[in-house]
Amino acid sequence: MNLKNKPLICIVMGSASDEAIAKKAIEYLKLIEVPFAVRVASAHRTPDLLHEILEEYKDSVEVYIGIAGMSAALAGVMAGAMPSKLVIGVPVKSSDLVPDSLLSTVMMPPGVPVASVGLDAGKNAAIVACQALAIKYPEIGERLVEIFRVSAQKVRDADAKISATYNIHCD
Amino acid sequence: MNLKNKPLICIVMGSASDEAIAKKAIEYLKLIEVPFAVRVASAHRTPDLLHEILEEYKDSVEVYIGIAGMSAALAGVMAGAMPSKLVIGVPVKSSDLVPDSLLSTVMMPPGVPVASVGLDAGKNAAIVACQALAIKYPEIGERLVEIFRVSAQKVRDADAKISATYNIHCD
Amino acid sequence: MNLKNKPLICIVMGSASDEAIAKKAIEYLKLIEVPFAVRVASAHRTPDLLHEILEEYKDSVEVYIGIAGMSAALAGVMAGAMPSKLVIGVPVKSSDLVPDSLLSTVMMPPGVPVASVGLDAGKNAAIVACQALAIKYPEIGERLVEIFRVSAQKVRDADAKISATYNIHCD
Amino acid sequence: MNLKNKPLICIVMGSASDEAIAKKAIEYLKLIEVPFAVRVASAHRTPDLLHEILEEYKDSVEVYIGIAGMSAALAGVMAGAMPSKLVIGVPVKSSDLVPDSLLSTVMMPPGVPVASVGLDAGKNAAIVACQALAIKYPEIGERLVEIFRVSAQKVRDADAKISATYNIHCD
Amino acid sequence: MNLKNKPLICIVMGSASDEAIAKKAIEYLKLIEVPFAVRVASAHRTPDLLHEILEEYKDSVEVYIGIAGMSAALAGVMAGAMPSKLVIGVPVKSSDLVPDSLLSTVMMPPGVPVASVGLDAGKNAAIVACQALAIKYPEIGERLVEIFRVSAQKVRDADAKISATYNIHCD
Amino acid sequence: MNLKNKPLICIVMGSASDEAIAKKAIEYLKLIEVPFAVRVASAHRTPDLLHEILEEYKDSVEVYIGIAGMSAALAGVMAGAMPSKLVIGVPVKSSDLVPDSLLSTVMMPPGVPVASVGLDAGKNAAIVACQALAIKYPEIGERLVEIFRVSAQKVRDADAKISATYNIHCD
Amino acid sequence: MNLKNKPLICIVMGSASDEAIAKKAIEYLKLIEVPFAVRVASAHRTPDLLHEILEEYKDSVEVYIGIAGMSAALAGVMAGAMPSKLVIGVPVKSSDLVPDSLLSTVMMPPGVPVASVGLDAGKNAAIVACQALAIKYPEIGERLVEIFRVSAQKVRDADAKISATYNIHCD
Amino acid sequence: MNLKNKPLICIVMGSASDEAIAKKAIEYLKLIEVPFAVRVASAHRTPDLLHEILEEYKDSVEVYIGIAGMSAALAGVMAGAMPSKLVIGVPVKSSDLVPDSLLSTVMMPPGVPVASVGLDAGKNAAIVACQALAIKYPEIGERLVEIFRVSAQKVRDADAKISATYNIHCD
Repeated sequence: MNLKNKPLICIVMGSASDEAIAKKAIEYLKLIEVPFAVRVASAHRTPDLLHEILEEYKDSVEVYIGIAGMSAALAGVMAGAMPSKLVIGVPVKSSDLVPDSLLSTVMMPPGVPVASVGLDAGKNAAIVACQALAIKYPEIGERLVEIFRVSAQKVRDADAKISATYNIHCD
Repeated sequence: MNLKNKPLICIVMGSASDEAIAKKAIEYLKLIEVPFAVRVASAHRTPDLLHEILEEYKDSVEVYIGIAGMSAALAGVMAGAMPSKLVIGVPVKSSDLVPDSLLSTVMMPPGVPVASVGLDAGKNAAIVACQALAIKYPEIGERLVEIFRVSAQKVRDADAKISATYNIHCD
Repeated sequence: MNLKNKPLICIVMGSASDEAIAKKAIEYLKLIEVPFAVRVASAHRTPDLLHEILEEYKDSVEVYIGIAGMSAALAGVMAGAMPSKLVIGVPVKSSDLVPDSLLSTVMMPPGVPVASVGLDAGKNAAIVACQALAIKYPEIGERLVEIFRVSAQKVRDADAKISATYNIHCD
Repeated sequence: MNLKNKPLICIVMGSASDEAIAKKAIEYLKLIEVPFAVRVASAHRTPDLLHEILEEYKDSVEVYIGIAGMSAALAGVMAGAMPSKLVIGVPVKSSDLVPDSLLSTVMMPPGVPVASVGLDAGKNAAIVACQALAIKYPEIGERLVEIFRVSAQKVRDADAKISATYNIHCD
Repeated sequence: MNLKNKPLICIVMGSASDEAIAKKAIEYLKLIEVPFAVRVASAHRTPDLLHEILEEYKDSVEVYIGIAGMSAALAGVMAGAMPSKLVIGVPVKSSDLVPDSLLSTVMMPPGVPVASVGLDAGKNAAIVACQALAIKYPEIGERLVEIFRVSAQKVRDADAKISATYNIHCD
Repeated sequence: MNLKNKPLICIVMGSASDEAIAKKAIEYLKLIEVPFAVRVASAHRTPDLLHEILEEYKDSVEVYIGIAGMSAALAGVMAGAMPSKLVIGVPVKSSDLVPDSLLSTVMMPPGVPVASVGLDAGKNAAIVACQALAIKYPEIGERLVEIFRVSAQKVRDADAKISATYNIHCD
Repeated sequence: MNLKNKPLICIVMGSASDEAIAKKAIEYLKLIEVPFAVRVASAHRTPDLLHEILEEYKDSVEVYIGIAGMSAALAGVMAGAMPSKLVIGVPVKSSDLVPDSLLSTVMMPPGVPVASVGLDAGKNAAIVACQALAIKYPEIGERLVEIFRVSAQKVRDADAKISATYNIHCD
Repeated sequence: MNLKNKPLICIVMGSASDEAIAKKAIEYLKLIEVPFAVRVASAHRTPDLLHEILEEYKDSVEVYIGIAGMSAALAGVMAGAMPSKLVIGVPVKSSDLVPDSLLSTVMMPPGVPVASVGLDAGKNAAIVACQALAIKYPEIGERLVEIFRVSAQKVRDADAKISATYNIHCD
């Protein structure tokens, strides 16, 4: 199978202002080389466009990521439209009433879940999407492990540097 | 004009479990004698039904009330579907993460407002709907004032009773 | 009817420091060409002035917008003074105890509602006011739809641009 | 001076449903024998009645206590009407959005303070009122100290009992 | 493929007291007939047992569900131990500091996501797990759609009943 | 009586870093010409100093203002040490866990009240202190009213300016 | 060394109403057989008694546990009085403004720490006290490990029972 | 005993980005001259490294300090791995959902405590560690008192300066 043929993941932002958060997901997906599409559609301003997008990708995309702030209805509306598809929600901090988007994203009614990641956690949404795809595509799982190892090594490097810096005086 | 002919207000609950909150609105609308319809439709579970309902009433209903808990997308989705209609949202306490439905209801993006009342405030939603209708139908405004006067009189009665009970010993 | 004759909407700020939020409402009302008045009156510092203003506009204004921060009593006091009028509240972020103005605005007792929009949401308050007026003045409803369409088109334009930027590498 | 002649303190509840909280204040004021009046008036439902009450007591009452829940505008409106009078606010828990009444009571704009006590803290409001009166009436200060000593003795008694119960096994 | 052979999903509760929440997931998984295992292991009390469990199922289980309250480290620790596996977290209300388990579950550092559902949302966790499995096993997707349709029909039935009850008086 | 002889109010800050908030109180007290002392003493770091201060002023000071952030024990400890004295608390924002100082200040146990003003509300604390003193010293009450009138006039001036700016286009 | 001779730990409750939380600590200390004293003293109502208690135990007690609700100043005041002693704070839920006691307990200023455990977590306070004592008394450390093992075994037993109950249908 | 021989305290940061908070602890420990080690290890990214570290220091370190943000599992996982050791947690503000790290750190299940200090309170964590060590090493207790006295003197100095600045006009 050639993973590069068609998008397996569709990232939908509720507003062009969510681009910075989407980029965190995009960067990860480029690194892990899983094909994806990126779209902008508001559950409130352009419900029609949102449904056109879902229709457009329904034969290729296997996981959706909805990125939205405030009363973040986007991921939930996507979830209600495609009951068999995994929809990951990324709550965005876009107001001073901070928990608004997290609660709007994660507190879905029984039967219509959104799988939420943390505030502004675009990268983690990409990883969750890849973990779900890895069930079917084992090569994605292997890359997930490789990338994780690199980040673990960075912690070990930081540990070596920090412990060298601060521990001298204990001798 | 005969206000009783057709529903001017449509109350939509996101779930049958919101009935107790809807009843507070219904009671007020019966008292003030403004005709209304009551429906159940979930923005997440039955988006199609929700749009059928909006279609069904589009020639008579002038104000919508959306009653929903948790990630309360209902009123917001209704607002996005009918940009010229007033949509009032009633956030319902249906989880232990209490501000979830309030924030989901009120923190709408610029351009797609929901007019929110307080938590579980079905009666206040009905009054807001009638105040908007009173712009066109002055008789509704008159009844709003009458009912308000009755409730003000109840406060005066309570004041008379309470001050009689507790103030004696000051002589 | 000439909508430009007299103000149909009166915006009251609780303090001159709320002007930035009021401007969002003012801009929208200029765009949609609904006549309005803008006033400053504090429910706490100048209750007399507030009542003079309500008296002054009582024959023309059909919807009030109260903009206030902190213990935002303004919209609620206006609501209590005019039981048949729609009063829209805009909670302003003016302290570090963020939900203060939202809760003060929206959690009104049964019988005296304020129709609240989101934090600092001056534009949405203007739209709610116009939606209520549109019940009586259908031409306002038409303009609401037109402006909404423009904003929806902007989302579609952003979608075209964003998807062109990020989707190339999926071929 | 005969403190029993006329009310020095006026307790105003926003609703008859706040009676249980008012009773905590009333009990303390009876114990300390400072004369008071108890009234019911809503800042939202009966602003006229509220002003009649303030007028009625303006020559005798020196401290006001406002007891209200939700969007608790009562104490703030009283403060705005009487800039030289001490107004104590008691936020009442009357909704599930718990901090609503506390924030509405305490977050007053600069220049128009309410002196707030804790949630449902009717007794503490009575004590604050008496402490302010004690500046002028030293005998009230003496009684405040006496009552405080009794409550301190109760803590000492509890300490004696608890330490006897649990400390035996340390021998 | 026989989905009933081996568990595809492993539910881990942090404590036997989480059983009621786990049951919501179990019921759904029985209904949809996806095989699963249910275990109890605490990230804090029995880290060894937790790793034995992950080892035991590593060849069959494709999705993990971690159910825990308070400082809910369980799902996060599982995620850190298996970087290529999807780990779904269910925050449980088990203290009065309500958002504790939600924030502990969802606010994972970049690179180690947990896919969180709402508070106590055992059923939604099961559905997310099945949606991820449906990428590989299309028959699970079909059953997800069927079950969703049944729940949508229940909303339509409730709508029929509610609208019949309340709408009569509008004629 | 010469109000300028001795301090009637003692402002105690918990830390020199609270000076900016204390200055708001100081400015008001200078304006209204009520004599005051300003001190620094921490309930946690220098309990001895705090008691020395309370001892020092016990014959002249009639109202205390405690200004403190975080776990703001200062006002409460002062209240416990002087049961007949009015102690006003000013919660200071000095951490990112914003409600910490407000809740520490206002949520006093029954019998030992602190009269709390809003976050960082040094000026309002000064006004509350003066309102309490005004019970005994009527001239302070007169000045409170004068200053209030000036601030009310500023609102009226702002109203004149704002309404002139924005209302032109309604003709 | 005979650990039973004199109290090593002193538990102070702010009020007799905190007894239920203190009992959780007492039970653990009896089980692990570390001698302790239990006292009642309020930082606000009986500051003198509190200092008498600290004086009384200063030669034997090595760790203090302060248990208090609302504006929980107790542990902090103890910490300020004994800069070299470990003071553990147990925030008690005693009001509806839930985080009040946690924030009051944990948000101490730099230089005067309280070591806080979770809400109502009397048992965990006892364990922290024993862990600190175990630095000096290794036998306490051994008992801590034993008791921990018992609780870990309980988790393993629950796991065995739960997995037997629910996993049958996976064959 | 030579306290400088081997580290008695091990500070573990969950990420190199927590260094600023760790430095507050390091500075205090250098001042008080208690030997310590500083390491970086993530409970989520490098659980293996974390266990290597705990193994490495198990014969010398008597108190651990875990510093972590967001879903701060670090201190809790350390506590679960070493039931007889005191583990102090420092919640770090590293997201906009502010209480996340505090609740994750402090709300540990019964039996596995973390002794939490306030948000970003690295210095207070160092003091708590030293207070626990002072049970065994009285010289640490003496230094704790000395350093405390210096900080108390700084408050007295500030008091002298502030009272000189502001109190002049009261003569």
